[in-house]
Amino acid sequence: MGRWEPDAQGRLQQAAMALYTERGFDQTTVAEIAERAGLTERTFFRYFADKREVLFGGQRQLLEQLTNGVVAAPDSAAPLDAISAALQEAAAIFDDRRDGARERQAVIDANPALQERERTKRFALAAAMADGLVSRGVAETTARLTAEAGAAVFQLAFEQWLADGTHDLAYFVRRAVADLKASL
Amino acid sequence: MGRWEPDAQGRLQQAAMALYTERGFDQTTVAEIAERAGLTERTFFRYFADKREVLFGGQRQLLEQLTNGVVAAPDSAAPLDAISAALQEAAAIFDDRRDGARERQAVIDANPALQERERTKRFALAAAMADGLVSRGVAETTARLTAEAGAAVFQLAFEQWLADGTHDLAYFVRRAVADLKASL
Repeated sequence: MGRWEPDAQGRLQQAAMALYTERGFDQTTVAEIAERAGLTERTFFRYFADKREVLFGGQRQLLEQLTNGVVAAPDSAAPLDAISAALQEAAAIFDDRRDGARERQAVIDANPALQERERTKRFALAAAMADGLVSRGVAETTARLTAEAGAAVFQLAFEQWLADGTHDLAYFVRRAVADLKASL
Repeated sequence: MGRWEPDAQGRLQQAAMALYTERGFDQTTVAEIAERAGLTERTFFRYFADKREVLFGGQRQLLEQLTNGVVAAPDSAAPLDAISAALQEAAAIFDDRRDGARERQAVIDANPALQERERTKRFALAAAMADGLVSRGVAETTARLTAEAGAAVFQLAFEQWLADGTHDLAYFVRRAVADLKASL
């Protein structure tokens, strides 16, 4: 049982997504996910704290990348431009995962508790980008407002990217930032 | 029992806030609120659907006012300026209620479920303002982004106003809008 299983995490993730889609999130148990993946429950819990983490596991990494991306933007960049640069950079990690992202979104859209969880993620994204701006010396209130506008940009761009078949996510980020600038 | 009670709604609200503050929201029952106000439970339910509505009852009116305020802004106003005008106008209804607003905020801050409810209110504010912008002919994506930035402005301004003793809420709205514009 303790033996190494090739790509156990990927297999568990695939099995979980298939079951969430077929039966719904609430109707799926960890035992069923493990069985579908041909692995044990113990192996599941080596990779995921619970069945929700299969959907939200990548968040910490994304938050770190956003903070770092804001900090690393050119010194001359205005706050919103620093956020735009960080979002475009982070967007690249999604681009070969559009089908998976669509499947995940459908699971979340079908479940109010998961939608709630997804909304709190947006506050976390804004906080991560605001931290990056404050590190750049931006005043805290400006940092917070700009980061929240940036989180709204990312959410809109992400929805447009999911619905689209041609452009990459960074394209929609740039377009939303331009839209926001035009509103002032 | 069916007789008219002078300012029953105000007495119930005061009694509820006092009990939420003393005991906490979860530990307070409608029966206790009615008793403290010298009224019956039946009277309570004539004014409020449940004990949570004492805290969130004014929301529909605020949403309508925001949509109308955005629509009524001068034709020449850019989307963010239309939102700023609507927020400043809506701000006026809060200005003689700072103490009550502080008391309410303390009750909400002490209760995670109420915080959650308060967060969903922010999405509703954004949606109401976006509706107003769309009525003005603003493109839907721009409307949504600007309205979400406006909701972030209102939230920040409200917190600053609660912490402050001199300026009115509209002052903090104007300042936050200026901060946001400076970030671009």
